[in-house]
Amino acid sequence: MSTPVKRRTDPERAQNRRNQVLQAAAVCFARSGFHAASMSEISKEAGMSAGHIYNYFDNKDAIIMAFVDLHAEDVLTNLSELDSLDDPLQSMIDNAHEHVARRLDPNCSDLPMEMFAEATRNPKIAEALQAADRRVGDRFRPIVKREREKRGLPIDDALLDGRINTMVALFHGLPIRAIQRPDMNRDSLVEGYRLVLKVLLLG
Amino acid sequence: MSTPVKRRTDPERAQNRRNQVLQAAAVCFARSGFHAASMSEISKEAGMSAGHIYNYFDNKDAIIMAFVDLHAEDVLTNLSELDSLDDPLQSMIDNAHEHVARRLDPNCSDLPMEMFAEATRNPKIAEALQAADRRVGDRFRPIVKREREKRGLPIDDALLDGRINTMVALFHGLPIRAIQRPDMNRDSLVEGYRLVLKVLLLG
Repeated sequence: MSTPVKRRTDPERAQNRRNQVLQAAAVCFARSGFHAASMSEISKEAGMSAGHIYNYFDNKDAIIMAFVDLHAEDVLTNLSELDSLDDPLQSMIDNAHEHVARRLDPNCSDLPMEMFAEATRNPKIAEALQAADRRVGDRFRPIVKREREKRGLPIDDALLDGRINTMVALFHGLPIRAIQRPDMNRDSLVEGYRLVLKVLLLG
Repeated sequence: MSTPVKRRTDPERAQNRRNQVLQAAAVCFARSGFHAASMSEISKEAGMSAGHIYNYFDNKDAIIMAFVDLHAEDVLTNLSELDSLDDPLQSMIDNAHEHVARRLDPNCSDLPMEMFAEATRNPKIAEALQAADRRVGDRFRPIVKREREKRGLPIDDALLDGRINTMVALFHGLPIRAIQRPDMNRDSLVEGYRLVLKVLLLG
């Protein structure tokens, strides 16, 4: 999934401008909400004229698609790093603390929650999220399979899917839990999370 | 947390009218999005004049608060039923299939996802969600503690909190996972979910 770049003259400059717009969009989504943030608010935040922003993105949907792509690229980079480790699954379990802290950080660079809500009404956004998730899954799944195989654990397709889908659901639920219970004991949450990762990945 | 009822003459009639507004609001939130749904759209959907709706709710925030309260009441009713069973924790594990199905149903009566996103910007909504969660937690926690104690399992406060917070995070992540991967194998997801419930509640 890639988003077409309009009137691209100097590719590097255009890419910088696009990134500038995406950073501004992230600020506006957080401040005004995903729905209320307008193209004019985003262009103002990016320090561009309202017309100039349309050189880079046709509309808010196009910004959102680029957002989803950028996020998938980040995740794929992290997965390549994970894949290069001696024991990727054990590393995930060992680094539970770091991972939970990132998921609970309201300023983390993750997809805004509203994007998922918006996807229930906007098929283009749903398709972008699903395509990004397939790319990420195609990278992560073989790592889990290979590492489980090394350990002689079951690796049938349905089992792997169920384990991974459950784990990803937990990732996505953590920021919601932080909103419901901002003062929760984070160390004990990490312990719960670690227990779950252990049983799903190595159980 | 209760929301004041304005100009209540016949309490039963007023309550029916309030429920009618809440049902209409649910339809409008799903159709237009939480942010875009207006008081006038909601009153139209409820078959009321735009002015009439203000007899029951001051503004959209008041509707949202009532929504959160109503949802907490539903959960508390379910928890009372759970508490009356012989083995509540084992029942939760046994009924994993039903529970997952409910969380993946886009028409389920749960809190709309956007409410959590909105809570990051609206302290009143955040406070309502947190108060509702405390009520639910105060009901659920003693059940888990008692049932674990019966089995001779550890029941220290931090451990219980961590287990429950992890479990609730997983609940909230399931609808998001369904958006990312609508065609996922649900039986294997239930297996993953069941494994997690088992280790968190009885591990």
